[in-house]
Amino acid sequence: MNIILLSGGSGKRLWPLSNEARSKQFLKILRKDDKSESMIQRAYRKIEAVDPDANILVATVQSQESYIMNQLGDAINISVEPGRRDTFPAIALAASYMHDVMHVGEDDAVVVLPSDSWAEDSFFDSIEKLYRHVLNSEQNLCLMGVEPNYPSEKYGYIVPKTGSEISEVAAFKEKPEESAAKEYIRQGAMWNCGVFAFKLNYLLDVSQKTIGTSNYQELFSDYNNLEKISFDYAVVEKEPKIDVLRYSGNWSDLGTWNDLVKVFPEPCIGQHVEKDCEDVYLINELSTPVFLNGLNNVIVAASPDGILITDADKTNSIKKTVESFDHRPMYEERKWGEYRVLYETSYTTNSLTKELIIEAGKNISYQEHYLRDEIWTVVEGEGQLLLNGEVSSVKCGDTVKIAKGVKHAVRAFTRLHIIEVQIGDDLVEEDITRYDWNWEG
Amino acid sequence: MNIILLSGGSGKRLWPLSNEARSKQFLKILRKDDKSESMIQRAYRKIEAVDPDANILVATVQSQESYIMNQLGDAINISVEPGRRDTFPAIALAASYMHDVMHVGEDDAVVVLPSDSWAEDSFFDSIEKLYRHVLNSEQNLCLMGVEPNYPSEKYGYIVPKTGSEISEVAAFKEKPEESAAKEYIRQGAMWNCGVFAFKLNYLLDVSQKTIGTSNYQELFSDYNNLEKISFDYAVVEKEPKIDVLRYSGNWSDLGTWNDLVKVFPEPCIGQHVEKDCEDVYLINELSTPVFLNGLNNVIVAASPDGILITDADKTNSIKKTVESFDHRPMYEERKWGEYRVLYETSYTTNSLTKELIIEAGKNISYQEHYLRDEIWTVVEGEGQLLLNGEVSSVKCGDTVKIAKGVKHAVRAFTRLHIIEVQIGDDLVEEDITRYDWNWEG
Repeated sequence: MNIILLSGGSGKRLWPLSNEARSKQFLKILRKDDKSESMIQRAYRKIEAVDPDANILVATVQSQESYIMNQLGDAINISVEPGRRDTFPAIALAASYMHDVMHVGEDDAVVVLPSDSWAEDSFFDSIEKLYRHVLNSEQNLCLMGVEPNYPSEKYGYIVPKTGSEISEVAAFKEKPEESAAKEYIRQGAMWNCGVFAFKLNYLLDVSQKTIGTSNYQELFSDYNNLEKISFDYAVVEKEPKIDVLRYSGNWSDLGTWNDLVKVFPEPCIGQHVEKDCEDVYLINELSTPVFLNGLNNVIVAASPDGILITDADKTNSIKKTVESFDHRPMYEERKWGEYRVLYETSYTTNSLTKELIIEAGKNISYQEHYLRDEIWTVVEGEGQLLLNGEVSSVKCGDTVKIAKGVKHAVRAFTRLHIIEVQIGDDLVEEDITRYDWNWEG
Repeated sequence: MNIILLSGGSGKRLWPLSNEARSKQFLKILRKDDKSESMIQRAYRKIEAVDPDANILVATVQSQESYIMNQLGDAINISVEPGRRDTFPAIALAASYMHDVMHVGEDDAVVVLPSDSWAEDSFFDSIEKLYRHVLNSEQNLCLMGVEPNYPSEKYGYIVPKTGSEISEVAAFKEKPEESAAKEYIRQGAMWNCGVFAFKLNYLLDVSQKTIGTSNYQELFSDYNNLEKISFDYAVVEKEPKIDVLRYSGNWSDLGTWNDLVKVFPEPCIGQHVEKDCEDVYLINELSTPVFLNGLNNVIVAASPDGILITDADKTNSIKKTVESFDHRPMYEERKWGEYRVLYETSYTTNSLTKELIIEAGKNISYQEHYLRDEIWTVVEGEGQLLLNGEVSSVKCGDTVKIAKGVKHAVRAFTRLHIIEVQIGDDLVEEDITRYDWNWEG
């Protein structure tokens, strides 16, 4: 089986847990045995359970590469989009990567699915059915349709020609009002959950015809000039040879807090005390406790970015409000570990205090800042420091002052925990120039 | 007028705003013009408005001295109790301080009132009436009684002999059940709000008789051997010559969150976004936003110590739960400014990161730690550093490493903002030895 796992979005819909750097699919709010698990980790694991030999490719943007490698391992195939051009260019690029880099055969089939939804195990069996159907049929596309369990206004609908498990598509319907949704459901329509399959040569042909090439290198180089267009609009709506496969189990796009809490391993996660509450859900990522007292039907989420306290039935409208929040992310995962902003000042000088955690064996890139000094205090671990080409050892208790213009890096032998104080005019992540360094050399 | 303002308690009833270091009376949740104001500041200001020449003495414990001087000025009279021995020893000590140190005459009267309640302006006029009544009557004690506006179970009741503004006391009643409270109110009883007055020589006599001395130095030296006993039990209940003054305006002991929010200058204080809420109150002391969505009748309080989210009608029971919380305070005011804990680690080493703010012209005491190193990074301001007797200048951008056993202090010329990283075995406020230093010398 060949799978393109779409990892996009920088949605704030699940603020304050998701932010520009941390998309929904990376939130570790699920649980596998006694370990926490993100949505993308779960999807990956479920696909491998159905087909241990599956070729899985993650299609994403550069800012998510670290998260994906941290969560799925360094060996994962990643097709990095050089910009944001909507879903058709992204899928065309990923399909060409599958062909040119992963050497998937032209006659083989590919299933595309989003990485940030949730479904029960039988959904992944249906994905394999979808793959086999496309492989063996003359149709160009096959979509997965989810049997609706309520007349949702959030999803598009697929109307099938027949009621059988696999049917030709009669029509597509945009997100409807509730009354129209009820009528579609009466006609046997299903939710469009964004999962579909095609034969690889079909998509390469479409790319060739509409973009002028299906070559990975050419698509990659020219990516930012491609027309912004969705896969639905560019391909699905124009395609007459199209089937739909009926899936009747549970599925959720986890698009709102109210959806998300339904998949929590327990109602309240993180440091908390709960007293006399009913139907209350909490996720607390802070190191201080949350005390929930006498509440009913409330969802609370606390992270370094902020605190959300909402009526559980009113989470649809959150996105609109939080879109206006424009504070910098206070927490990010990186290839080397993670950082958290502890404190910012902006009285007479700007300063920013961060904790950095660099995992054993990892290093931050060799880099230089033009607008800030950095003072590091090592509070845990041992490693090597690189300053303007000179390597020395560092350990717990050491302090290093890195003036503007000094090239620097650090490598952890054991887990390194550093308190970093930045002082400068403009304290932004973008003030960074990276250099190569061979640590073994 | 002579006033003893009682500043006691380390209650957690208003957790997470109040903690061991920050009692209720210091919370700046009131407002005077466009500046925030604490309860003790307001009480002090209202007394001065009634009598600009009032002799005001604050009776308190050592841990609150910094708060009191920060909030009421360095010139405030403070009677510091060397330990906690309940209210009779505290008032006896304060009365002897008034006589021996402030030279208040024996025939003069003194009014005692708690610093952590709230009342409208006419209450302070009644305080003056109380003072004048005791000064001019033959009674030994006069209490203030508050006309109840509901049959509260939280307060003791005072039953007067008559319905006139000043009456002899017929009986005292302990905190009753609601039905008994209704009966007391029918009999004209009033709440005991903890305000009372006496002639100074009366209390000195009582001290002499029960403790054996009314001398300030002797009481202070012997304080921790005194019997723990409340003023009510030691004095009030035994005294036959006792009046009550009727006060009919608004008064609140601000004893629960539900009481406290009623005196908020606006419903939501601090960084926040509120959408479709009704009867929701917030105080947010954090630097990240709180988003309140679709809530009804909820109180939220967020501070470095934690986050409380409670139904507004269920705040009576909070105290019991939070009494089991035993985390160190994450924020304290000091004579020199304030500190906040930003981060703690305890993986392989213990470290604690704090921000210190030292106000211009102030200094921290010359001190030494045995169990920890400290690394300071100055992120704002200019000042002087003292290390083992050597004075040097420090400014924004400087880093100082203070090893265990190195005596150190810092003085701020302009507001100094320091990020302090502590590394050591046991990171507690108690690991401190203080020395004298004459900065001018």
